[in-house]
Amino acid sequence: MSDAPLRLGLAGLGTVGMGVVKILQTHADLIAARAGRRIELVAVSARDRTRNRDADLSGYFWESDPVALAQRDDIDVFIEVMGGHDGPARLSTEAAIAAGHDVVSANKALLAHSGQALAEAAEAGGRVIRFEAAVAGGIPVIKALTEGLAGNQIKRVMGVMNGTCNYILTRMQNAGLPYDQVFEEARQLGYLEADPNLDVGGIDAGHKLSLLAAIAFGTQVNFGAVELEGIGNVSIDDIRLAADMGYRIKLLGVAQMTGRGLEQRMTPCLVPADSPLGQLQGGTNMVVLEGDSVGQIVMRGPGAGMGPTASAVMGDVIDIARGTRLSTFGQPAKTLAAAIPARTSSAASHYLRMTLVDKPGALAKIATCLGEAGVSIDQMRQYGHSGTHAPVLIVTHKATRDDIDHAIGLFASTGVLVGAPVAIRIEEV
Amino acid sequence: MSDAPLRLGLAGLGTVGMGVVKILQTHADLIAARAGRRIELVAVSARDRTRNRDADLSGYFWESDPVALAQRDDIDVFIEVMGGHDGPARLSTEAAIAAGHDVVSANKALLAHSGQALAEAAEAGGRVIRFEAAVAGGIPVIKALTEGLAGNQIKRVMGVMNGTCNYILTRMQNAGLPYDQVFEEARQLGYLEADPNLDVGGIDAGHKLSLLAAIAFGTQVNFGAVELEGIGNVSIDDIRLAADMGYRIKLLGVAQMTGRGLEQRMTPCLVPADSPLGQLQGGTNMVVLEGDSVGQIVMRGPGAGMGPTASAVMGDVIDIARGTRLSTFGQPAKTLAAAIPARTSSAASHYLRMTLVDKPGALAKIATCLGEAGVSIDQMRQYGHSGTHAPVLIVTHKATRDDIDHAIGLFASTGVLVGAPVAIRIEEV
Repeated sequence: MSDAPLRLGLAGLGTVGMGVVKILQTHADLIAARAGRRIELVAVSARDRTRNRDADLSGYFWESDPVALAQRDDIDVFIEVMGGHDGPARLSTEAAIAAGHDVVSANKALLAHSGQALAEAAEAGGRVIRFEAAVAGGIPVIKALTEGLAGNQIKRVMGVMNGTCNYILTRMQNAGLPYDQVFEEARQLGYLEADPNLDVGGIDAGHKLSLLAAIAFGTQVNFGAVELEGIGNVSIDDIRLAADMGYRIKLLGVAQMTGRGLEQRMTPCLVPADSPLGQLQGGTNMVVLEGDSVGQIVMRGPGAGMGPTASAVMGDVIDIARGTRLSTFGQPAKTLAAAIPARTSSAASHYLRMTLVDKPGALAKIATCLGEAGVSIDQMRQYGHSGTHAPVLIVTHKATRDDIDHAIGLFASTGVLVGAPVAIRIEEV
Repeated sequence: MSDAPLRLGLAGLGTVGMGVVKILQTHADLIAARAGRRIELVAVSARDRTRNRDADLSGYFWESDPVALAQRDDIDVFIEVMGGHDGPARLSTEAAIAAGHDVVSANKALLAHSGQALAEAAEAGGRVIRFEAAVAGGIPVIKALTEGLAGNQIKRVMGVMNGTCNYILTRMQNAGLPYDQVFEEARQLGYLEADPNLDVGGIDAGHKLSLLAAIAFGTQVNFGAVELEGIGNVSIDDIRLAADMGYRIKLLGVAQMTGRGLEQRMTPCLVPADSPLGQLQGGTNMVVLEGDSVGQIVMRGPGAGMGPTASAVMGDVIDIARGTRLSTFGQPAKTLAAAIPARTSSAASHYLRMTLVDKPGALAKIATCLGEAGVSIDQMRQYGHSGTHAPVLIVTHKATRDDIDHAIGLFASTGVLVGAPVAIRIEEV
């Protein structure tokens, strides 16, 4: 224990920041034993100094400006848990790097937008940026991917990484309630971001996916190339009918390198109900890592909240205290390739739901359209109906989304369709 | 890429060793990009040089003696994947440390028996011992526990960590076959160690649990204090009846620090069928880590085999190449406490199965015995029966094993029992 203490500056005293304070205050000796040196919080910063935070902060210097905190010469590590992809978060992180400090960040938005530039700046100065807390909360997935699986060519990364969306989808399923009602419940429970579209639009989860993809495939973060579709159009009908066929609907992120380029998707998908992803309930997160040697590793845990996120921040801080020095994305930022985004997603089975007029030959016309588009049928179910409309479900064999869309285009000319068909990808997990 | 290459000596060219060779030969550039330097295999050792190993080994020096390999001055890291808790594995590991080399080991038996002495020797010389491959194969659980969750006080570690046992138990369940028959199948499939008791007696899994416990609780490895019970007495009747009540039987390792000391158990337990542990099928492993901040993290993946185990070895090697230096058990070996083993396990619900003579009042007598022993009943089921015997299942409320055994002792004096009752712990997961 001869080393000097590691000194921290903490920007952000919301839920996560106060979780970090709590761990530092309650586990100082335990952490010192593990890190081989003491870890000391020196200075903090937050927007509102007067708020009651239920902890004694009198031992820390207070900076009203996070940039000033980042520039203090009595800290070694700058911890950024304010959030926001621009503004103070970005300015203070840049200032910390310029001042020669290491950075620990929980900020997925900032890293998804500016990770490459920040990593290059940090690495040029011999500094590290660590961001375990930015992806899947308390699950140490960045570490597993960057370090534990470093001997693997990564084949695919998948994840349910927004707890609010998974809460909404499983609540719809379990209670049989429509999206709008469960969305309102989630809002009242405080599960939604101030801008709910960050959650239900898939943006937050898409940020996380783009960070995992950069590490997995040695490519520059490219959030702009993530195919994004939120859960707002997932209907209770589809959840019920998918369940009837042995599937669950998840907002699933998938990143894989294909012959057509890097595929990054954050979209509703069907997964088998008895798979680990299919069984995932409520706000819990799950990440699936697939490597050529290791096969499939599944990690499951809390994706948000004070304790889990602070645990991830502290894991990074303790790594730095122990002297671990890693490139931000697992290899030097300057060696990361600019990935070519795949123009279309890889072929997959699809779930199709449509309503047909109840006339002889209606189904035959639909089948003919699918055949013309080169899409073959794996399963088909026609449900009992009232009146003149017949709900029909089709599970296709593997087909590209282009072919599915082509078939749907042909449906329109048949005159047997009532309303618009729904098409959802079925991901093999 | 200005650093000198990291030079490896590999002792053991069985499945795991050849997996390491394969990764080094196919992914040299990928690994160099991630590690920041090249990683080169310099010399190898195995018992039989003439065996056809389906790979070109001509570029490596051959040592017939692993101790001589460990002492070579042209290696930086000694990789031990021979196995065995004594003999060449131990001698060569000691020799590598004495020669100033770092060690990467897949040898759970050696570390469970001699981990403390080896860690002290390594740390005295500034060397590291890494052993991700020794626990749960390809799952990076040592890393998650030692590093990712280092900010947590660990509350409990659980795991299904012997794939062969989980294969046997799930095959019994799914096919309705008795233990002896499935054991024989597993033997013919090559799933069993040369000494099958290492698998089905829980010894191999117990080794792994003792290593996790040392890291989790900052205590010296104490394999001798692990309560060990294999799966040889798990009957198809119990598997069926447990399933009927919503449970699965698993060979489950549990380590937790209690007021009565360190509890380490590797025993058959009932877990809820719909929990991640309950849903685990076949040879897959699962480890559950519970920390005070992070809550519960579940990791699932392949627990054995060429690729997964070699992946874990390479994760450790790449860490060393990157300059990561950690204490063997997460804090200096000399600071690890000698844990006091808990004399008895913590209270839990128990599953009791017994057969009673079919006479009025028989069940009342059993209930009276339970009451006398201070054990209360949560659920009770009497099954349809033929002739004069009635199978009875009881799920108790939380009780210590001592109280359960006390009750079973009292049963004997009632004269209503046919044969011996079965008692299995129900672990809350």
